[in-house]
Amino acid sequence: MKFNEMLQKSWDKNGSLLCVGLDPAPEKFPEKFSNFDRPIFYFCKEIIDATADLVCAYKPQIAYFSSCSAEEDLIDLIDYIHTRYPGIPVILDAKRGDIGSTAMHYARESFERFQADCVTLSPYMGKDSIDPYLQYPDKGEFILCRTSNKGGDDFQMLDVGGEPLYMKVARKVDEWNVNKQMGLVIGATYPAEIKAVREIAPDLTFLVPGVGAQGGDIEAVVKTGINGYRTGLVINSSRAILYASSGSDFAEAARKEAKRTRDAINFARF
Amino acid sequence: MKFNEMLQKSWDKNGSLLCVGLDPAPEKFPEKFSNFDRPIFYFCKEIIDATADLVCAYKPQIAYFSSCSAEEDLIDLIDYIHTRYPGIPVILDAKRGDIGSTAMHYARESFERFQADCVTLSPYMGKDSIDPYLQYPDKGEFILCRTSNKGGDDFQMLDVGGEPLYMKVARKVDEWNVNKQMGLVIGATYPAEIKAVREIAPDLTFLVPGVGAQGGDIEAVVKTGINGYRTGLVINSSRAILYASSGSDFAEAARKEAKRTRDAINFARF
Repeated sequence: MKFNEMLQKSWDKNGSLLCVGLDPAPEKFPEKFSNFDRPIFYFCKEIIDATADLVCAYKPQIAYFSSCSAEEDLIDLIDYIHTRYPGIPVILDAKRGDIGSTAMHYARESFERFQADCVTLSPYMGKDSIDPYLQYPDKGEFILCRTSNKGGDDFQMLDVGGEPLYMKVARKVDEWNVNKQMGLVIGATYPAEIKAVREIAPDLTFLVPGVGAQGGDIEAVVKTGINGYRTGLVINSSRAILYASSGSDFAEAARKEAKRTRDAINFARF
Repeated sequence: MKFNEMLQKSWDKNGSLLCVGLDPAPEKFPEKFSNFDRPIFYFCKEIIDATADLVCAYKPQIAYFSSCSAEEDLIDLIDYIHTRYPGIPVILDAKRGDIGSTAMHYARESFERFQADCVTLSPYMGKDSIDPYLQYPDKGEFILCRTSNKGGDDFQMLDVGGEPLYMKVARKVDEWNVNKQMGLVIGATYPAEIKAVREIAPDLTFLVPGVGAQGGDIEAVVKTGINGYRTGLVINSSRAILYASSGSDFAEAARKEAKRTRDAINFARF
């Protein structure tokens, strides 16, 4: 099944636009995991089991795995989601970007080794750095457009012929998206910008990080970013859900926070 | 020792500005490696042994390792270079770029897990996506500026207030480089652009991919990119050296091609 169809079904099935980001930092795990052989795998597994009926997707951030030599945990977690909760897509947050011959290897990493359904990519090296991923017709790609970090302004806000660079990126990705595989990453912190991009790209899905720990306003994100079908958004929260409690009730607290976030999104949505 | 000092010594010691890129693609290896338990490690080791007196640096491309689940080979190769040929820096070509909390994990991946001396990064997310790497004072960072692939034009050539985006990136990196840890990646295919960047950033080191298989003109690169000390360049060739022969003489052929390239650089340099 194509990624965009998988996502559509997932939005519908759980009635949710919430994505839970899997950024496992062992130093933040509850005490009990210090005795575990594979703390990253088991911590994430409990988070997944506690939230799978509340989300439209999961987004593991590869840096958290690779910095800990935990590639096997990442493989097993994605396999676990696909097997135990079929239909929930996994977006591998990798922000890769390189020339075609190298991008082919990165695509293999994301889609064959890790079996992700979708990957995040950087636009800086242009279309031919994205093409190798499109060779996997069932997979999706979210391209960085506007990021919510302070440094996001350094280049993304530069004026290019009367509009900021990120708008040029949005226009290009919309133009490139003939196979309906692509979407955009747009941070939650600037709703006016989400609105501006939605106006020029009504059909693209936006992956929106930055609600939760990063402080983005859910209502403003939904009101400005939603498409004509009241979907078109994958709203990500990582730390606020994963580390809602540092005690033994962490999974229950994660569920509660995920439910709160999903409901806040739906309240703004309908 | 700081990366820029290590590189300076390495330029001097071997009288070379040549960097050999380690892009190990097992399907291109000579026949004998099909029987090896760790073909990637042993192929690269033979390349390194055949070229270590001719280079200023090695640049493993991480995608070629991660697509093959060969992280252990990468760790062991970098350790082999550091142990057997001390003083030759290893630049991990990773082109990472993410928010600070994630960049910290990528920095850990590059500098602690893999023990690279330097890493390549993408500028799109701005200064705070680079800061975590600067926390390792002995390490270096090359930031993507102008890339030699066709898609490099898509965004890097956009006009920003009278000059292309890549010039803005060059100016920003030059401004950020207070600790002398940073350099720029500039493709070999557009010498006029190398010249323009050298004029505004006389002190930055340029990592220049694109000679060899990608067809960049060595003489033009050296004449336009060299600094006042007749250094300031790390000129990378990967495929043209690694796969100079597909027979059992591959290491000898790699040495010959590396020597030819180093000499062509030095001919233009002096």
